[in-house]
Amino acid sequence: MLKINTQRFLQTFDDLGQIGATADGGVTRTAFSAEDVAGRFWFEQQVKQSGLDYYIDGAANQSAVLRSDTPQARTLLTGSHLDTVRNGGRYDGALGVLAALEAVRTIQDAGLKLPVHLEVINFTDEEGSILGEFGSQSLTGQLKPSQLAAPRGGVEALQSGMARLGITAETALNNGRDPHTLAGFVEIHIEQGTRLEEAAIDIGVVTSIVGIRSIWLTFTGEAAHAGTKPMNKRQDALWGASEFVQRAKTLVMEQFHPGVVNCGRLMLKPGAFNIVPAEVKLALEFRHGDEALLDVMQGQLVALAQEVAAANQLQVEAQPADSCTAAPSSPQVVEAIEQAAGRLGLTHTRLMSFAGHDTQMMSPFTPSAMLFTPCVNGISHNPREYTHPQDLINGANTLLHTLLILAGV
Amino acid sequence: MLKINTQRFLQTFDDLGQIGATADGGVTRTAFSAEDVAGRFWFEQQVKQSGLDYYIDGAANQSAVLRSDTPQARTLLTGSHLDTVRNGGRYDGALGVLAALEAVRTIQDAGLKLPVHLEVINFTDEEGSILGEFGSQSLTGQLKPSQLAAPRGGVEALQSGMARLGITAETALNNGRDPHTLAGFVEIHIEQGTRLEEAAIDIGVVTSIVGIRSIWLTFTGEAAHAGTKPMNKRQDALWGASEFVQRAKTLVMEQFHPGVVNCGRLMLKPGAFNIVPAEVKLALEFRHGDEALLDVMQGQLVALAQEVAAANQLQVEAQPADSCTAAPSSPQVVEAIEQAAGRLGLTHTRLMSFAGHDTQMMSPFTPSAMLFTPCVNGISHNPREYTHPQDLINGANTLLHTLLILAGV
Repeated sequence: MLKINTQRFLQTFDDLGQIGATADGGVTRTAFSAEDVAGRFWFEQQVKQSGLDYYIDGAANQSAVLRSDTPQARTLLTGSHLDTVRNGGRYDGALGVLAALEAVRTIQDAGLKLPVHLEVINFTDEEGSILGEFGSQSLTGQLKPSQLAAPRGGVEALQSGMARLGITAETALNNGRDPHTLAGFVEIHIEQGTRLEEAAIDIGVVTSIVGIRSIWLTFTGEAAHAGTKPMNKRQDALWGASEFVQRAKTLVMEQFHPGVVNCGRLMLKPGAFNIVPAEVKLALEFRHGDEALLDVMQGQLVALAQEVAAANQLQVEAQPADSCTAAPSSPQVVEAIEQAAGRLGLTHTRLMSFAGHDTQMMSPFTPSAMLFTPCVNGISHNPREYTHPQDLINGANTLLHTLLILAGV
Repeated sequence: MLKINTQRFLQTFDDLGQIGATADGGVTRTAFSAEDVAGRFWFEQQVKQSGLDYYIDGAANQSAVLRSDTPQARTLLTGSHLDTVRNGGRYDGALGVLAALEAVRTIQDAGLKLPVHLEVINFTDEEGSILGEFGSQSLTGQLKPSQLAAPRGGVEALQSGMARLGITAETALNNGRDPHTLAGFVEIHIEQGTRLEEAAIDIGVVTSIVGIRSIWLTFTGEAAHAGTKPMNKRQDALWGASEFVQRAKTLVMEQFHPGVVNCGRLMLKPGAFNIVPAEVKLALEFRHGDEALLDVMQGQLVALAQEVAAANQLQVEAQPADSCTAAPSSPQVVEAIEQAAGRLGLTHTRLMSFAGHDTQMMSPFTPSAMLFTPCVNGISHNPREYTHPQDLINGANTLLHTLLILAGV
């Protein structure tokens, strides 16, 4: 059975890991930075040395293409991103590009003739150093002028960054591909969680990337003297908020597993030892892979807040903040990954991705899915991020066979 | 039966209420201010016009004395304070001075010969505009140089304020009286709560002024990605803190009534929608009139924090902040108040004071107690503070007879 060249594959992690290396074993290769430029140059050299076609698009996404002999063939995409967060790890993103490159080189070396073009892609700024998922949003035609006008990294940083990569707002906004030219997209990534490691499973097959909803809940009661106001007369906003935190946790764990909920921030007014809290503003976030279930969660969580407020003689207001739509995977790609893992004798399980990835942009555009490898202790965005070589190899081989299966081989 | 002159008594509220009057019907007569000086001048004139002896001590406490014919007689003190908080009401403090003055004038008018000197006192800065209970701490010899060096209103404000009232640090620190010259202390005050009003009771007899303990509880867990970290693996510091808030409330209401507990401030780290809280710092305050029960409460609340922390895989640390000792009333003075109310056919009940008063300083020094009058809707420290004239009159008459009973008449 066809397998990747493990030595060549593992060597690429060592080579790439030196670009932007930090003293503690981590990597800083934030998008649009000089280190990012160096990483991109390294990738370009790798592609050119391997005899694959090299392209760069209007969003500075880099591609390595193994062309089919059928000129009008569609393109099967695979890849991830080479940029990192500040002081991140060597595997987040890198695995997806390096495994894709290795898989395509293996197919090239084997002289296999496929009915699709194979394209390895390195997406620009997945991590959002300046504008998150810049490359995949651009390629799928979702990038908007309003985003370029107010990126989280600042307009000046974006403009000088784009100039450094040789692109402009115009090229990025006119970079959308025709989805009919695509046969699908597959991304391999480290799990950034502990589910695979704990269950000792080789491959995670991502059925959905979760949608995220954020809501500000404001509980309002009445400020009172913490001495003279009898306990049974208080309208303590924190009594409501704390009961909500407890019951929201139970509700989501019991009814919406594997969905998650977090109350990450609480602001009390007036905020003193000796004054009963009049107001608590609570940052509520919840995630699920199923958009319909997210609607149900939102309804039940807001109803819970209202029930708790009423029981504590409080008012409550729910003000939606950011949200992000769930991206279900393509069943066809999910089954291809499972079939590939099966061919290789690897154990696998279905799970959701609770973090965002470029696949989130690709899913509505072309049949897409992700596969995860285990990741030691779930540590990521950290210099201690680590995945065992055998897990990297298992992942790359699974990706290789997924591409072959999707290509009909 | 001897009764106060109601017209003269009520007139004093109207006259005093004009000094520092605010547009919305409130009063601003913060200690050491020009308005405070004006209020003091008004009081001095009242005393002198009524033929009582006028004194001012090293803390600028003002006194009106009706001397006994027995020169070596002890002094029975009664009074409160004429200073207010910023934008406060017309009754807090004022009632205690004006009712005392009226009661003593009534005794003077009746020509009663008592075996004690009667002294009406206006304590300096009870409200703590610069240094709380300045006057009563000074008179009881409890004021310390360290307090004068770091008053909450600032050293400069204290120094210029003392100069304005004609006192110095030296006079305030050497102002302690000999408790053997005193026969006791009685203070009448508005309740600043709703217990009397709701039960339609005329007079509250204060059995203790509550002790106050403040503790910072710090729950520590682990920051985590609010998406990828499974719910059942989280060490969410807010899960512990919110459970503590709920259970502390129940514990105190069920086991320590009428003691109270408040969680008035919560600080979360890191504090973001998408990060599981690693740390919650919680401002815990609890009050009870019985110092031994405060010890039990503290033990049980800290144990509860530890139990909740353990159950949520957290650490917890308890760091004591300010505390204030409970001041039980003198049973003899409590009974005198009850007997006085009984004489007048007024209903009465025993209760605790959940706010601090000058009596807290006086209690360990000389046999002391307080009586409360109802206060509409419990509103205080507010321009809407109000007590019905009949309640003011009932209170003043009860104070009058309490003084007579304590004097053995």
